[in-house]
Amino acid sequence: MSDADVKRQLSLGVFLAGAGHHVASWRHPHATSEARLFEHYLRVAREAERACFDAVFFADSLAVEPGALAHGLGPAAALEPLTTLAALAAVTTHIGLIATATTTYNEPYHVARKFASLDSISGGRAGWNLVTSDNAAEAGNFGRDAHVVHADRYQRAAEFHEVVTGLWNSWEDDAIVRDRASGQYFDPQKVHRLGHRGAHFGVAGPLNVARSAQGHPVVVQAGSSEAGRELAARTAEVVFTAQPNLAAAQAFYADLKARVARHGRAPGTLKIMPGVFAVVGASDAEAQEKHEQLQALVHPQLGLGLLGRMIGNFDLSAYPLDGPLPELPQTETGQRSRQQLFTELARGENLTIRQLYLRIAGGRGHFTVIGSGRTVADRLQEWFEAGAADGFNLMPPVLPDGLDDFVAQVIPELRRRGLFRTCYQGTTLRAHLGLPYPVNRNARKRTSSP
Amino acid sequence: MSDADVKRQLSLGVFLAGAGHHVASWRHPHATSEARLFEHYLRVAREAERACFDAVFFADSLAVEPGALAHGLGPAAALEPLTTLAALAAVTTHIGLIATATTTYNEPYHVARKFASLDSISGGRAGWNLVTSDNAAEAGNFGRDAHVVHADRYQRAAEFHEVVTGLWNSWEDDAIVRDRASGQYFDPQKVHRLGHRGAHFGVAGPLNVARSAQGHPVVVQAGSSEAGRELAARTAEVVFTAQPNLAAAQAFYADLKARVARHGRAPGTLKIMPGVFAVVGASDAEAQEKHEQLQALVHPQLGLGLLGRMIGNFDLSAYPLDGPLPELPQTETGQRSRQQLFTELARGENLTIRQLYLRIAGGRGHFTVIGSGRTVADRLQEWFEAGAADGFNLMPPVLPDGLDDFVAQVIPELRRRGLFRTCYQGTTLRAHLGLPYPVNRNARKRTSSP
Repeated sequence: MSDADVKRQLSLGVFLAGAGHHVASWRHPHATSEARLFEHYLRVAREAERACFDAVFFADSLAVEPGALAHGLGPAAALEPLTTLAALAAVTTHIGLIATATTTYNEPYHVARKFASLDSISGGRAGWNLVTSDNAAEAGNFGRDAHVVHADRYQRAAEFHEVVTGLWNSWEDDAIVRDRASGQYFDPQKVHRLGHRGAHFGVAGPLNVARSAQGHPVVVQAGSSEAGRELAARTAEVVFTAQPNLAAAQAFYADLKARVARHGRAPGTLKIMPGVFAVVGASDAEAQEKHEQLQALVHPQLGLGLLGRMIGNFDLSAYPLDGPLPELPQTETGQRSRQQLFTELARGENLTIRQLYLRIAGGRGHFTVIGSGRTVADRLQEWFEAGAADGFNLMPPVLPDGLDDFVAQVIPELRRRGLFRTCYQGTTLRAHLGLPYPVNRNARKRTSSP
Repeated sequence: MSDADVKRQLSLGVFLAGAGHHVASWRHPHATSEARLFEHYLRVAREAERACFDAVFFADSLAVEPGALAHGLGPAAALEPLTTLAALAAVTTHIGLIATATTTYNEPYHVARKFASLDSISGGRAGWNLVTSDNAAEAGNFGRDAHVVHADRYQRAAEFHEVVTGLWNSWEDDAIVRDRASGQYFDPQKVHRLGHRGAHFGVAGPLNVARSAQGHPVVVQAGSSEAGRELAARTAEVVFTAQPNLAAAQAFYADLKARVARHGRAPGTLKIMPGVFAVVGASDAEAQEKHEQLQALVHPQLGLGLLGRMIGNFDLSAYPLDGPLPELPQTETGQRSRQQLFTELARGENLTIRQLYLRIAGGRGHFTVIGSGRTVADRLQEWFEAGAADGFNLMPPVLPDGLDDFVAQVIPELRRRGLFRTCYQGTTLRAHLGLPYPVNRNARKRTSSP
């Protein structure tokens, strides 16, 4: 059977987020408490693994939102993603483990090392979601009075990526010989210093963690701005993205795949996975009802805070809830792509502030589908086959219930259509995603030189 | 039964280190490989937990030693401690989980958060070993040409400790109310900003991780210099220390406990746990034989590298192996206390360079005992009862074999003497160590103000 005969299948991740992605999810009767958070994630990760998802994924933030702090209307404490994924690694066997770590307030040696360690512990199942911070509150926890501006963040991110992947190439795959008789543990010629000196970092190397079963962690990115797309096209293996509708998703997909090709890469070596906020019911009507129950639980002040953050860290409390969104200057500290998305949405549909925050209270601007298993599968298939997605990052409204529903009703439907695996074919995240093993660049250099 | 009736018992940790603490341990037939390193630690941690040890412990280094790199005579790649302990947390239930994280090349918000997260995931079993870096190679991985000098490192460490513990007091124990009906998740009055502005750090807070079952992680330290002792006396709950003999250990113990008292603390709130390199055999002779077998496997260049590092990052390769240790200037970048220990040892016993590196090839200057279970138990009891130790941090020469021997032969002997528990009495690391629950300082302040 040639590659062309193998039917293309969806990649599926589960985006984990406490009690769920809907801002009112914690008020759901099955919502978990902080004291049981790890057990909660464990249950969810095991369920996702039984269903053969490619990966679970954690976003990250290095601060409590000032708005959240003032009112106390939702969870503001969480677990740190890398420690959580490492703990999950010990009690799962196949599922990929992806976490966000910002390049804005970290050092590349720490990030390279912790993800490489997670990759070893998990047998090659780690992924690093490289982001730049869009959270102004983080600056205050790292000795800065003001947040780093957008352009600087991307320069630093690009150099950060260069250092991290350079460190992941420190040890050639066969560097360790462990010859007990002679006392030779590794071949010094196959362990490489980095010697990086750049505008932001000086890193001598080598890394003190060896290569993993998948070479090194999968590089994930989530930037949608011009700078974010260019970095992704050059360096990412997976892209998470927020796309509100099919046309926008197709345009993003086509643009990014074209950029990938321009950088000399095969388009299949970068997987595009939009987030999907899916509310699944036994029927379309039951799904709508589930959604409305959650919407009714959104505290206005909580909705307003979420919206203010999503449009670029602006305080909207002085504006009437049932009036229009005011004119906003372009954000210098927040996510520009998200700001643009929501202001266009509000203008296009003439939404009030209240209507707008309710619109994003679940999906936060991501692809939203509310319906039966069949309805949801139809929409995912449509996007997948219309050049809008290589897979999806599932955002369940409530956890674990929303994942239960998806696994019980959407996954079987996708399998009937041949769109999703029935079992894992490999043991690494790269194997699940169909990404190539990264040849060690130092080995290539060393063996190709005379 | 009053407290006075309860017999004082030993605290025991296992210091985990790849194939073991002896530099030639990797050449032992049972030594593990990198690819199986996590499974190896899992086996060892579970064994330690079955034997009711207080904790397992990882040291840390943020660089590969230049010497190790040049020759390849021993392991130079490892797992990162926090990810490893988090993974172990998921598959153990009682044993404490302590890792080193340096204050020299980290940011306090990251350290506070990762350890708090480990503490939550493990149900209150985490400990943070606060150190200053003594490894000059680390500087090169964090954008510095030269290593931070000793005095600056300790100023930074003290401020780092202040910030981390401040962040661990962000959330009062009862801050989270989760009132589904009203939509109130937490009480904003019980979540505290830090507002720290100091010479090294500016950290606004609060931490985005809530309190754990033991309040916050146990603070461990390992400094033995004047500055290190003062910081420990003021702030540590456990001290790990390298003591070569009973007299030195007694002097250290008396000095540190007196300093603790001078800082207004009850001496029992700081536990002193010297490292012990124990080679255990069925008889004293068998133990000696085991040790000699390991000593014979020490590659001279490996021994020389270890010694050079231990005496403060000096290259000894130009000196004859069978000649005396040369005069050395006081180290500016290395561990001063260890440098002093080894130069005094060499002078006192008139050791050649080869004899000196063989002397430290296992214990690296720590208390060394080679003998039967009874012999080892005698020595531990002697130190414990003579005011030299509250417990020990066990350094098995080979892992898992050295721990197997200790559990099979020393633990039963200690139990017969009533010196070690037969089962856990609590579930947190603080409970095992007999340390008090840390009252939240912000709660105290808030409730005591009018």
